[in-house]
Amino acid sequence: MNISEDTRPVCILGLGLIGGSLMRDLAAAGRGVYGWNRSEKTVTAAQRDGFDVSGDLAATLQRAEKDDALVVLGVPMHALSGLLEALAEHAPSVGFTDVTSVKEEVHALVTEHGLSDRFVGGHPMAGTANSGWNVTLEGLFQGAVWVVTYDNAVDLAEENDRWVETWARVVTMAELVGSDVVPSLSRRHDRAVARVSHLPHVMAEALAVAGDFGGPLALTLASSSFRDGTRVAGTAPELVRAMCENNRSSLVAALDQTLELLQEARDCLADESRNLRELAGDGHAARGRFEARAGRNKGDQTNRPIIRVRPGTAGWVSQLESAESMGAQIAIF
Amino acid sequence: MNISEDTRPVCILGLGLIGGSLMRDLAAAGRGVYGWNRSEKTVTAAQRDGFDVSGDLAATLQRAEKDDALVVLGVPMHALSGLLEALAEHAPSVGFTDVTSVKEEVHALVTEHGLSDRFVGGHPMAGTANSGWNVTLEGLFQGAVWVVTYDNAVDLAEENDRWVETWARVVTMAELVGSDVVPSLSRRHDRAVARVSHLPHVMAEALAVAGDFGGPLALTLASSSFRDGTRVAGTAPELVRAMCENNRSSLVAALDQTLELLQEARDCLADESRNLRELAGDGHAARGRFEARAGRNKGDQTNRPIIRVRPGTAGWVSQLESAESMGAQIAIF
Repeated sequence: MNISEDTRPVCILGLGLIGGSLMRDLAAAGRGVYGWNRSEKTVTAAQRDGFDVSGDLAATLQRAEKDDALVVLGVPMHALSGLLEALAEHAPSVGFTDVTSVKEEVHALVTEHGLSDRFVGGHPMAGTANSGWNVTLEGLFQGAVWVVTYDNAVDLAEENDRWVETWARVVTMAELVGSDVVPSLSRRHDRAVARVSHLPHVMAEALAVAGDFGGPLALTLASSSFRDGTRVAGTAPELVRAMCENNRSSLVAALDQTLELLQEARDCLADESRNLRELAGDGHAARGRFEARAGRNKGDQTNRPIIRVRPGTAGWVSQLESAESMGAQIAIF
Repeated sequence: MNISEDTRPVCILGLGLIGGSLMRDLAAAGRGVYGWNRSEKTVTAAQRDGFDVSGDLAATLQRAEKDDALVVLGVPMHALSGLLEALAEHAPSVGFTDVTSVKEEVHALVTEHGLSDRFVGGHPMAGTANSGWNVTLEGLFQGAVWVVTYDNAVDLAEENDRWVETWARVVTMAELVGSDVVPSLSRRHDRAVARVSHLPHVMAEALAVAGDFGGPLALTLASSSFRDGTRVAGTAPELVRAMCENNRSSLVAALDQTLELLQEARDCLADESRNLRELAGDGHAARGRFEARAGRNKGDQTNRPIIRVRPGTAGWVSQLESAESMGAQIAIF
């Protein structure tokens, strides 16, 4: 089938900021979408807003199975296991994806449940500072990167057709809500986000504590470098813990390198005969590479390569590997 | 005399971003202001913009001495020594201030030149990412903190009258251009800015390098936490080096504490039985205290105490100490 003509619905389990906003966007795009949430309050609120939402997980999954819906697991990591059990029982053939911010642990969990042949991991990189149906909004994913994993991709394997279809449906759904899809293996995703998402949070916490230790005078003299450098320390501590503690080994590696850089800077400053030339130069060049790709300010035009991919054809896995190595987004055709 | 009725001019030596913008603001406020710059190009450009600027340092200082002008040293640290020599020779009685971002080293240098009885240190905390007359602008200091040191303040000492007058003139000038004046001893200023200005730069450089090390995929997956956390790594490396290398001992102390915090976080992550509760909680609380004082976003209303001070009167030094310990701004009356 041509995936662009796919009219089967999407079934979203868990209607927090990500799942709920996805429901709003898909509905606005005219796509069939329904879902489930554990809390009765959320079910009522979503129904009042005009959405097709139920509090009955088994019934919702049975409906998804009958519709051959694409199932989206919209719950946090700790709730995934329960949903995977229900999925195995009530929807034995549907393809599904998730939206959690680490991917290797999710893949392992899915494999444990024997469901990896119909799973494609996802990570929409959109705001997570607030949570719940009440903060859901249309347009959350517009222009955001949506990582789609390809751990189970195999070139031209007949028995892989169904998985390839699920993969293409996940990509198409992400594109439908305005996201830029970037392919990645789970472990490479986790290593990358450790450096550019989890590490920045740990650094912000440490900087906030070290600045605050200077007392009221320091806080009064703090200007934009401190404001920007500590902004994400304003994130709820449980969210910071969840993202960092779910990606321990990659984050430890990133922290070890950072500790070396800072220790070297410290030693250079403690020795009058040495200077900060190396770190200041390297940091400036690194920021330059980031700006070349992502623009200087939030909302600037990004400048990423785009790789065209035809799912399931000969060589498509190596197209995905190329895209990943370039940090490219993909377009399927 | 009542300092608010002071009509003597200001003489600015060095017309880069800070000195030049100060000249624009003082002129716009109707204050007599003239200055000097070493580069002929700057002199010509400033004259073309209608300002009273000369390339003759001796003549400018002789004019300042005759006018009893308040002299502002607008040059970077490495150029201060030369100006202090010229000041001693050609303007043997004028009061003067500076605008460099560290204060202890400047105070030591001024004392070396035997000029500390007429010196009041200053640090306007306004943008320094660009430099030169061409980037000067009106309104640069509006709402910015302007630190004024009081190292030489003595309660009610007759022989101190002239110094107190210079101190009050510096404060009044900073207020005239819209700044919030915060008093501080030099060493306390340097310790504070090490934590909230220099440390954020070192952290941003290290984070930029560690993120960039993740390659193109990491840079593509980088979102606002990385963007904000590395913003000041975009500052010219020489400027970062100048600020950090001029404040070595205070910055080393701040870095040592930060290294401990990050090492502890690293160890907590490497041990599955431990967690990030402490750092995430402390960082969040610290950011909360910053936001309570400075607002959440740039341009938000600040919330600082204001202490009224009458320069030179009994107890005024302890008023300054109180203000400093609270990170308060002052108003003279």
